[in-house]
Amino acid sequence: MSLIAVGTMAFDAIETPFGKVNQIVGGSATYVAYAASNFVQPIQQVSIVGFDFPQEEMDGLAKRGVQLEGVEIVPDKKSFFWSGRYHMDMNSRDTLVTDLNVLADFNPVLPESYRDSEFVMLGNLHPSIQKQVILQMKNRPKLIAMDTMNFWMEVAMPELEEVLKMVDVLMINDSEARQLSGQFSLVKAAKTVMAMGPKYLIIKKGEHGALLFHEDKVFFAPALPLEDVFDPTGAGDTFAGGFMGHIARTKDISFENMKTAIIVGSAMASYCVEKFGPERLKEITQEDIHTRIEQFVNLVNFDIELV
Amino acid sequence: MSLIAVGTMAFDAIETPFGKVNQIVGGSATYVAYAASNFVQPIQQVSIVGFDFPQEEMDGLAKRGVQLEGVEIVPDKKSFFWSGRYHMDMNSRDTLVTDLNVLADFNPVLPESYRDSEFVMLGNLHPSIQKQVILQMKNRPKLIAMDTMNFWMEVAMPELEEVLKMVDVLMINDSEARQLSGQFSLVKAAKTVMAMGPKYLIIKKGEHGALLFHEDKVFFAPALPLEDVFDPTGAGDTFAGGFMGHIARTKDISFENMKTAIIVGSAMASYCVEKFGPERLKEITQEDIHTRIEQFVNLVNFDIELV
Repeated sequence: MSLIAVGTMAFDAIETPFGKVNQIVGGSATYVAYAASNFVQPIQQVSIVGFDFPQEEMDGLAKRGVQLEGVEIVPDKKSFFWSGRYHMDMNSRDTLVTDLNVLADFNPVLPESYRDSEFVMLGNLHPSIQKQVILQMKNRPKLIAMDTMNFWMEVAMPELEEVLKMVDVLMINDSEARQLSGQFSLVKAAKTVMAMGPKYLIIKKGEHGALLFHEDKVFFAPALPLEDVFDPTGAGDTFAGGFMGHIARTKDISFENMKTAIIVGSAMASYCVEKFGPERLKEITQEDIHTRIEQFVNLVNFDIELV
Repeated sequence: MSLIAVGTMAFDAIETPFGKVNQIVGGSATYVAYAASNFVQPIQQVSIVGFDFPQEEMDGLAKRGVQLEGVEIVPDKKSFFWSGRYHMDMNSRDTLVTDLNVLADFNPVLPESYRDSEFVMLGNLHPSIQKQVILQMKNRPKLIAMDTMNFWMEVAMPELEEVLKMVDVLMINDSEARQLSGQFSLVKAAKTVMAMGPKYLIIKKGEHGALLFHEDKVFFAPALPLEDVFDPTGAGDTFAGGFMGHIARTKDISFENMKTAIIVGSAMASYCVEKFGPERLKEITQEDIHTRIEQFVNLVNFDIELV
């Protein structure tokens, strides 16, 4: 079993009310790989980096069962760089800098060994790139999930509509769901978005948890109430990695199992936000993951014996 | 078994993105009574109204097992009036008018028949009034819950601190919890607030659900994702009514049973917001309540079988 993770591997500069880092490894595929590799190996990484991306990061990922054959290294350009500042509520942030660098040339070619993978996670990228990855698969994967963002709705909506028809699961946040659907009510937004293609929609609400929609069913998983959210960067990608990692491990794409996958993803995300960048994800053990999932069970579990 | 409900019975004028009413019955004790009377009777109402409060509303409440002996009717004054306008997100509102009218003279005297009740819900009022009600009880009730608001933290903090020491459960919203504790993190806020007196703290987050804290335990109940939230007025009081109604019916004040009570309260609140004022609460049946609680079970229920 394997999981393809397509996305950025990058440097971030992050400022939160609790501190600041000028350069830390980030990128959607990095977070997906750190989270998913706890559940399934190999992770078949598809990304692009510059000459400056640290070899020890590559080695660290490889040790966790992340295949890097699909990661292009551009020798004369810098890695993608993003810089942002979070507000006190941590649910909103300002982007300060976006230097595309190598990302401007990203034209992923899937290694032959990746092309029969059953599970694909498409990180937030231009929808044409997401489509191009899907078209390189030998067979239709068992489950394709994708992330996107409001920017693509503004500049590449036709391409986004095309790729939405090709995927099974869309993961976006609440404001993106509202923008994509033109509906304020998330229940109505979900109906509209699912009519655009994806049979499953996950709406991420940050500290307010996540909703999973499928047909007329809905499931909700809270975020774990934490004493401190130190740095939310990568929490959404970490959630996606935990979700797809659990799905790929169990090879079960039923709605019931997706509920469990959402809890797994939420547990991983709750670790991610405890330190800057992916630092916390590098430390945690299987036991940590189980402990936290148990906390989720206790958080929402109740008995109903009514009149 | 009985439940004392102390609070306002009033008129509201409400404007939401979906419509407008110029005068509809409202008030915290009205919502508590409509919700709680589905689970426990009698509700022993403690409030004050003016000459203008409709007799048919009183009759309607009496038919549901709401005792009105503790409701003072002031013949030459008007009932409390509140007017507000909701923003598109329905989680924030502007108060347009607050006419205290009879509420300025509220000095509740508990009827003799109320004084040995085991369960007390103190709606949002001046903390001195809340204290005065508690002091009139013959024995310490089994469970006293109270609501409050930021206004009292600003103008009557010493009195609020006093009454907080006398109650078991405090129900406030997230911004009130932050203001009362001086902590941004709700987990830290909960610790600080519980150190002020209440052994149980419920933090209401509107469309984002509710958290129950006790010692080092936490439980989360989501709000039901609804197609439309028509009017959130009274949702918090309806939640409180459902919560205390379930507790008074079962006479079980364990943390486990409070979890169930939170789900019951959330189910009642999800009905409340479907129409203006308490209109929807007047219509629903026991079967409706059970159906909706079942929806909550489906919303959060998941299996965990991990590695």
